[in-house]
Amino acid sequence: MSALRLKGIPAAPGYAIGRAWVLDRETRGSVERRSVADVAAELERLDRAVSAAKADIRGLIDEVRRRLGAEEAEIFEAHLLLLEDEEFIGRARTRVAEQSRNAESALHETAEEIAGTLESMDDDYMKERAADIRDVGRRLIGHLTGADGNRSVRPAGPLVLIAGDLTPSETVRFQGTAAGFATAAGGRTAHAAILARALGLPAVVGIGERVLAVENGSVVVVDGTTGELLANPSPDELERYRELQARYEQRRRRLLPYRNLPSVTADGASVELAANIGSPLDAEAAADNGAEGVGLFRTEFLYMQHDALPGEDEQFEAYKSVALRFHGRPVVVRTLDVGGDKELKALPLPKEDNPFLGVRAIRLCLNRKDLFRTQLRALLRASVYGTIKIMFPMIATLAEWREARALLDAAAGELRREGVPVPDRLEAGIMVEVPSAAVLADLFAKEVDFFSIGTNDLVQYVMAADRMNPELARLNDPFHPAVLRLIRGVVEAARREGKRVGMCGEMAGNPLAVPLLLGLGLDEFSMSAGSILPVRALISRLNRSEMSRLAEEALKLDDPDAIRSLILRAVPGLADPD
Amino acid sequence: MSALRLKGIPAAPGYAIGRAWVLDRETRGSVERRSVADVAAELERLDRAVSAAKADIRGLIDEVRRRLGAEEAEIFEAHLLLLEDEEFIGRARTRVAEQSRNAESALHETAEEIAGTLESMDDDYMKERAADIRDVGRRLIGHLTGADGNRSVRPAGPLVLIAGDLTPSETVRFQGTAAGFATAAGGRTAHAAILARALGLPAVVGIGERVLAVENGSVVVVDGTTGELLANPSPDELERYRELQARYEQRRRRLLPYRNLPSVTADGASVELAANIGSPLDAEAAADNGAEGVGLFRTEFLYMQHDALPGEDEQFEAYKSVALRFHGRPVVVRTLDVGGDKELKALPLPKEDNPFLGVRAIRLCLNRKDLFRTQLRALLRASVYGTIKIMFPMIATLAEWREARALLDAAAGELRREGVPVPDRLEAGIMVEVPSAAVLADLFAKEVDFFSIGTNDLVQYVMAADRMNPELARLNDPFHPAVLRLIRGVVEAARREGKRVGMCGEMAGNPLAVPLLLGLGLDEFSMSAGSILPVRALISRLNRSEMSRLAEEALKLDDPDAIRSLILRAVPGLADPD
Repeated sequence: MSALRLKGIPAAPGYAIGRAWVLDRETRGSVERRSVADVAAELERLDRAVSAAKADIRGLIDEVRRRLGAEEAEIFEAHLLLLEDEEFIGRARTRVAEQSRNAESALHETAEEIAGTLESMDDDYMKERAADIRDVGRRLIGHLTGADGNRSVRPAGPLVLIAGDLTPSETVRFQGTAAGFATAAGGRTAHAAILARALGLPAVVGIGERVLAVENGSVVVVDGTTGELLANPSPDELERYRELQARYEQRRRRLLPYRNLPSVTADGASVELAANIGSPLDAEAAADNGAEGVGLFRTEFLYMQHDALPGEDEQFEAYKSVALRFHGRPVVVRTLDVGGDKELKALPLPKEDNPFLGVRAIRLCLNRKDLFRTQLRALLRASVYGTIKIMFPMIATLAEWREARALLDAAAGELRREGVPVPDRLEAGIMVEVPSAAVLADLFAKEVDFFSIGTNDLVQYVMAADRMNPELARLNDPFHPAVLRLIRGVVEAARREGKRVGMCGEMAGNPLAVPLLLGLGLDEFSMSAGSILPVRALISRLNRSEMSRLAEEALKLDDPDAIRSLILRAVPGLADPD
Repeated sequence: MSALRLKGIPAAPGYAIGRAWVLDRETRGSVERRSVADVAAELERLDRAVSAAKADIRGLIDEVRRRLGAEEAEIFEAHLLLLEDEEFIGRARTRVAEQSRNAESALHETAEEIAGTLESMDDDYMKERAADIRDVGRRLIGHLTGADGNRSVRPAGPLVLIAGDLTPSETVRFQGTAAGFATAAGGRTAHAAILARALGLPAVVGIGERVLAVENGSVVVVDGTTGELLANPSPDELERYRELQARYEQRRRRLLPYRNLPSVTADGASVELAANIGSPLDAEAAADNGAEGVGLFRTEFLYMQHDALPGEDEQFEAYKSVALRFHGRPVVVRTLDVGGDKELKALPLPKEDNPFLGVRAIRLCLNRKDLFRTQLRALLRASVYGTIKIMFPMIATLAEWREARALLDAAAGELRREGVPVPDRLEAGIMVEVPSAAVLADLFAKEVDFFSIGTNDLVQYVMAADRMNPELARLNDPFHPAVLRLIRGVVEAARREGKRVGMCGEMAGNPLAVPLLLGLGLDEFSMSAGSILPVRALISRLNRSEMSRLAEEALKLDDPDAIRSLILRAVPGLADPD
């Protein structure tokens, strides 16, 4: 019973402590193959299993929709479609008919065949879809054999599930039974991981096969924040984790009331706390965490899922679903931002010597107007379902902004002539991430509807330091006074023209930066969903007028460390938010 | 007699028109090898040739020093050293003694052997030194045989020399005889090319063997500005080149008086026109072109010549020679600026994803203090021979500047303790090329002795556009208003603290930018030597007060093309400087 510490991918935050229930499915890989005499009867058996599975899944969809929301339910709607898929069920039926074999083995072989193909793809999204087809296969085989194949004994007390892989169905099924889970396979974007976050189940995935060596029934800790799994901890370690868990839960409970509260300072100043999202699924977690809108909807995910560029309708559906989810609250959609460190299989780009200084984002879109037009049309069509605002990334010159805005207006005119409803005027703004845009903020402010400061890139360009280069971490610091001065200039320029300024870089969700940004006069803070409640709680105890004076003091300093110390002194409790 | 147009490397500007004199040295490669009976007599013959060659070269050194200057004469001082070199003369004597063979063939074989080794090196500088050893070899063989080996008839009238390669001696010897030259081999940094520029002989080098197909006596045009050679031009073409030549000469004559004039505007404002140089040899051309100092001495050349890093003494000699050449006028030396697009064989650097945003220039020097200390010591020692100022490149933060300045002061203290004379205080400043330095210019101005704005990099970072990427040429434009605003801010910040501001990017030598920069209040313009006289002539007809108003107007515009048009309208004759 020696201690075992394993590292995986943190998939859902929090701490789970319990006895390991190791899902031992040795039988999974060895479904018995039998010859059948009556092929017609076997096919009927298979069809009955499909019908039963459909009924299961319909029930699951209802339950998930009620408990988690429409987006999570879509995961199982896709399972329903798999049960009608000729590629899957049709192929399994052919195997039964042509080879006079039992339905279980035909289904198992077909599911493994398709899952294997998906896993061989050089694309994390497709790889992780293999778990869905296995999920459906397993469910069907369960109906045929009346067993789930697990032979290990369920320990007593609170449980931590350990498995090679966990299907979305299992994740939902074991919630309530298990305090958390850990798997050998999987990634952060697997459906099981997405569901775990929605269910508030701490989870670590992608640990590798070693996790299956954990003994059934042994005491296990899952640290979903760091991605660690600890088996057989010492009494001291266990005590430490119990404390961490208690603090985490306490914090969660403390923050929960802020979910439905507005974002207001102690002296009554309102700001907006929005979420950065990367797909319609993220929108759900954002809303769950009390986001008052979406400050940055990255649209690259649509372009990364397939080998072909996404069509107008596919994009329309994605934008529409997020617009609907936010019931009229603003959803700021950033147009395609590829190039730099982001590559697209569907759009091979020439290799550049300095991709961060290359033909990326709006530069690429203005070169590839066909591609840009498709996205603008999809956005315009979706915008009647909510409040969509369009944001252009990497704008460096007024000419670029004017060209992008003109293309948006042209696409709107085109749609109107086609009889498609589009709003009278869509708000459009720019990311402020190229230094020239910050320097010329007064000129831009006269023309754009809003600014959103992208600190990640702004810092790297202002400091001329690649933000991915670990050697330059000291330069890549948004507290550098040059960066703060530019932020102040952008806010002041916007204010003079009555325009809103948001921030969607990592800085906006950093508790140490929030007092400063509040003092500088930022209107909207957009961050990852998990940061919203802590930031709202923090803002509720700050005074905007005091923070303005703090910002003034901070901007007199020439060193980022001195600025941080000043803030820590001015705002008690920042260093230890619990 | 069909027309033939060939392209090479422009080595010295101007137009030469004349008849081709093709140096046909078929015999070069086939010096006759004979056995000699009396080895002692042959060695004496060789020694006499060496003595005679030394006398030649001493005469040449005197002549070149008088006519061109000390730097050019050093080329031939190196030849003198070769005549005392054991590797060369010693090896040839051994060949005579051990093989009882004639001195000519022993010298020829030895020279070719050494030249071949040099040429095989992966280093342009060493490759081009092969011409020097052949030059000395040929001179010795000439003394032994009494012939130069050329069999082609010298045509009448003005001549254009065409050769496989031209040695430094030949370049000097044929000046007066030839109007210009073109060679198959060679590069811009070969001694022949350097001498051609100093002599004002239009030259194209590196054309390849095809140039030897030009018929002896045919009419030839050498365009040393574009690097073209045209044989047998049509009457129209010939006419066009005569016009170009006339305009070029007229311009040269018109500008000549400005060589010894100060740089003063029509309303009496003085500025300084300095040169950007890359080696001590360039200092000569800079002085010849009326530079009032050196605004940027790039020190990378020292680090690129050998496979090992240059020692303190070697660097000291290089800095000292430039300091002496400028007789107390300021020489601004930039500390090592590698990384980015500049690699060093002596200092292999890790591959970076975005080298322009990487560990380059001062960042590298602060990581490699050993290397930095050697350079600072060499600079401090050299600074007593003139007015050296030290400039740190790529400064982004005050902390970097303070650390660099402290290392300089520490090196000075070290030298003083060693009893080496160093000035009481050396002026030190920074390149303003990272946007943060421009944004914080007011803070830097309190501490540095001077600024030098490096527009090439500043523009690329402010616009976030790789300056080497041809797709982004429109963004890499120093007339963008964001760049101009930052320049104005730097000048104003310096002015408030009484510090000087120079500019050493390409913008400083651009006639279209000069009126604007003058109006913004720039103190020093540093540029390539060839731009100094035209810029001085331009400045002499501008009013600083008018240019200040022009700059104010320009800074209200949001488009670089509009800014250029404004300047063109305000300053007549800018579009066509001839």
